[in-house]
Amino acid sequence: MSMDLEKIKGLLRAVPDFPIPGILFQDIFPIFKDPVATQTLVNHIANHIKSLGKIDVIVGLDSRGFLLGPWVASILGIAFQPVRKAGKLPPPTHKVTYSLEYGSDSFEIAKDGVLPGQNVVILDDLIATGGSAKGAGDLVKQCGGKTVQYIFLIELKGLNGISKLDAPAYSVFNFDD
Amino acid sequence: MSMDLEKIKGLLRAVPDFPIPGILFQDIFPIFKDPVATQTLVNHIANHIKSLGKIDVIVGLDSRGFLLGPWVASILGIAFQPVRKAGKLPPPTHKVTYSLEYGSDSFEIAKDGVLPGQNVVILDDLIATGGSAKGAGDLVKQCGGKTVQYIFLIELKGLNGISKLDAPAYSVFNFDD
Repeated sequence: MSMDLEKIKGLLRAVPDFPIPGILFQDIFPIFKDPVATQTLVNHIANHIKSLGKIDVIVGLDSRGFLLGPWVASILGIAFQPVRKAGKLPPPTHKVTYSLEYGSDSFEIAKDGVLPGQNVVILDDLIATGGSAKGAGDLVKQCGGKTVQYIFLIELKGLNGISKLDAPAYSVFNFDD
Repeated sequence: MSMDLEKIKGLLRAVPDFPIPGILFQDIFPIFKDPVATQTLVNHIANHIKSLGKIDVIVGLDSRGFLLGPWVASILGIAFQPVRKAGKLPPPTHKVTYSLEYGSDSFEIAKDGVLPGQNVVILDDLIATGGSAKGAGDLVKQCGGKTVQYIFLIELKGLNGISKLDAPAYSVFNFDD
């Protein structure tokens, strides 16, 4: 079973002034009430990744990159590895500090989470200003891996976050602001 | 394809004195390097849930409950809903404050994440002292739902966290301490 992507986009819920005034928050969790919607998204993303050539690892950002990442990786028969906030992954790790939409933060990846020369897709739910995605890209580079593409469920195009990234980006759903 | 569960258990990495001295941390992420291991775990958990009768919603705890939750829910054809730290889910939410192994925290669930009368399975990666699982159970109750079972990848039996819970628990992997 599958569902039209535009119909899935219609399940997103826009919440004004959350988490702070002036931000229009896109709530993805209504999608997860519908198992056909999530299955459709996962298959769509897996098919897209198949078109990119050889990919070795899906790197997913904590925490909403965890929702689909291992599932997509399993369909493709490849590894999933997390990027998490500093202090949550046991040593040894690589670490970066980056600025994001509402402040700044430090993220880590396991040193052996990506091996030198491996091709990586970085997955997250949403790209706004792009700080956290850029941080994940820097961590992949520290491991010696190559980020082939960044994939997001949602891109807020007005913030132009993809201009920060060192590889092309693909977003399933786009919003102008 | 599937893999022996004992072999998957062998992929876990025990890290002494993390995140604080005296804690033996069980790192689950080596499992996620192997897509056959994750597929096996998801099928095992989905089959277990099928044995419980009618379940309407999988509630997964942020963030490691997100790794398998939507995937299990999709196999079962049911909804997935998150419990997240306070401030991360847009309103309206229910909220609880609970004590956990390393301190205390507040968690929320969307008010319509579980509907009155629905049967729920709560999923997380690990139960230690059981504070966060108990918090999730309290949130399901606030929604008017019924927690039929708590499911964990790992149970640290020596901490007896399941004694806090209002429903039976099932753990894929058990450790004596």
